[in-house]
Amino acid sequence: MSELPVDLVEQYLLALQNRICTAIESEESSGAFREDQWDYLGGDKNRSGGGKARVLEGGEVFEKAGVNFSCVTGSRLPASATAHRPQLAGRHFQAMGVSLVIHPNNPFVPTSHANVRLLIAYKEGEAPIWWFGGGYDLSPYYGFEEDCRHWHQTAKEACEPFGDDVYPRYKKWCDDYFFLKHRNEPRGIGGLFFDDLNQWPFERCFSFMQSVGDSYLDAYLPIVRRRKTLPYTDHHKQFQHYRRGRYVEFNLVYDRGTLFGLQSGGRTESILMSLPPQVRWDYNWEPEPGTDEARLYNEFLPPRDWLSC
Amino acid sequence: MSELPVDLVEQYLLALQNRICTAIESEESSGAFREDQWDYLGGDKNRSGGGKARVLEGGEVFEKAGVNFSCVTGSRLPASATAHRPQLAGRHFQAMGVSLVIHPNNPFVPTSHANVRLLIAYKEGEAPIWWFGGGYDLSPYYGFEEDCRHWHQTAKEACEPFGDDVYPRYKKWCDDYFFLKHRNEPRGIGGLFFDDLNQWPFERCFSFMQSVGDSYLDAYLPIVRRRKTLPYTDHHKQFQHYRRGRYVEFNLVYDRGTLFGLQSGGRTESILMSLPPQVRWDYNWEPEPGTDEARLYNEFLPPRDWLSC
Repeated sequence: MSELPVDLVEQYLLALQNRICTAIESEESSGAFREDQWDYLGGDKNRSGGGKARVLEGGEVFEKAGVNFSCVTGSRLPASATAHRPQLAGRHFQAMGVSLVIHPNNPFVPTSHANVRLLIAYKEGEAPIWWFGGGYDLSPYYGFEEDCRHWHQTAKEACEPFGDDVYPRYKKWCDDYFFLKHRNEPRGIGGLFFDDLNQWPFERCFSFMQSVGDSYLDAYLPIVRRRKTLPYTDHHKQFQHYRRGRYVEFNLVYDRGTLFGLQSGGRTESILMSLPPQVRWDYNWEPEPGTDEARLYNEFLPPRDWLSC
Repeated sequence: MSELPVDLVEQYLLALQNRICTAIESEESSGAFREDQWDYLGGDKNRSGGGKARVLEGGEVFEKAGVNFSCVTGSRLPASATAHRPQLAGRHFQAMGVSLVIHPNNPFVPTSHANVRLLIAYKEGEAPIWWFGGGYDLSPYYGFEEDCRHWHQTAKEACEPFGDDVYPRYKKWCDDYFFLKHRNEPRGIGGLFFDDLNQWPFERCFSFMQSVGDSYLDAYLPIVRRRKTLPYTDHHKQFQHYRRGRYVEFNLVYDRGTLFGLQSGGRTESILMSLPPQVRWDYNWEPEPGTDEARLYNEFLPPRDWLSC
């Protein structure tokens, strides 16, 4: 269909999925990933593809960890994929990526999300239009400055070979994107978010996507190791469940990847694997001033330059 | 602003809210509603209004019950309110209604939802365009034919004075509306759903809305009384939490009232009061064949004519 090195991207993504699952399992003491291979079985004859959904549930360290690979082709690119380029909506397309969400058990370990992806839109008689997207972001329940600085420092180092302006740009995009308008509240402390990346040659864009994908474990695992054995009480757990509600609200109301998946005939169970295992909603709850819960809202969630201090 | 008897509608709605809260409290053994009065405080100078949010949390019978009254005016009718009449989008509007969701503790008592509302779109030099909407629907966790038949029988009787075709039409609309496309699954066993109601004179439409509003307690309370003391286990409770996930998915991805509220600068905590208190998502879970959980999917959720048997 094209002379783009799509196979290399697919190989990278499959290897990344393996690497991340192995590393997550090595932090877990009582659980392993199981895999579901799935093929697109929807009604659209012009659509095909599938994926490998891997999930670890009920672990001692990870309450739910989902690491998905998917590769689908379709006859009409959904609107959610082309928010910035409406002229591409309706084209034949190919989309491949790895997407993951890790929900740890211990409320002192943040939830993390990462995604890297390649999209290609085809039109007969024209060169295919391709773009990369991805990033990662962190949602702590209890804030630790050390963790936030480490997360952002790793993100910055992944961007540095590609220019000094890359980290600040994608850090800001992440802050802007993972924002719950109806709460006037950021989802977490951010990280990186990029989309529509095609301003460099294909090889360099692919290389940037790899740099982001490769750095995710370096960003997250040290935080997991540092916090996973901290003692916690039911009070901390309840707050974690409450805050997970914001994760659900964001993913179902705003997230482009979730909407793209549901609109493009993706596999619902793989897409909604991102949702937390246990969640609660309490009416009009607010943290007591001066508590660690209030500190999350006041000191950690408002967008900050984590690397200036 | 108009000679429509809007005050009478408002009085009816406030009285309905009182009546429902009193009746719900009379079934509860350990809890009462608390009320938050709120005023619109958003940035839009052309918008005003407010509401009375009433919530009962942590009761013995009702884990979370929210019964809201709201009345807002705004300068631009949101798109979600005018799916069928895009020409009205952007008009000055007034919206008032009562909306409620009851999440019982006992998994053998279904969750119920009801809503009645009036919308008016204004344009200078033209007669205001008004329409009523509303309905109620039931989401059981464990199916009881007797309950479903009673629910639909009451709905049918509320519609009968307005024509024999009214119940079948709004019963089907309810089945069509409360449907999770990404799951290919109905949210519950339906009831009534109507919108854009202005085909009769204002008085008759208002009267129909009252008939629906007035019949909600007759439809729901007998079911609550019959099931609220049935013994249940943690197994039943876990399934209730799992199925509540579908409620969250529907409300955040599809529900017009939720989207209208969030888009029209409504009070987020009042709008999301509909979300269940405790929820869980399990990856790729399916009920064991032959169990009561499987019966819900196979015998109760698929749309049925509950009154023919």
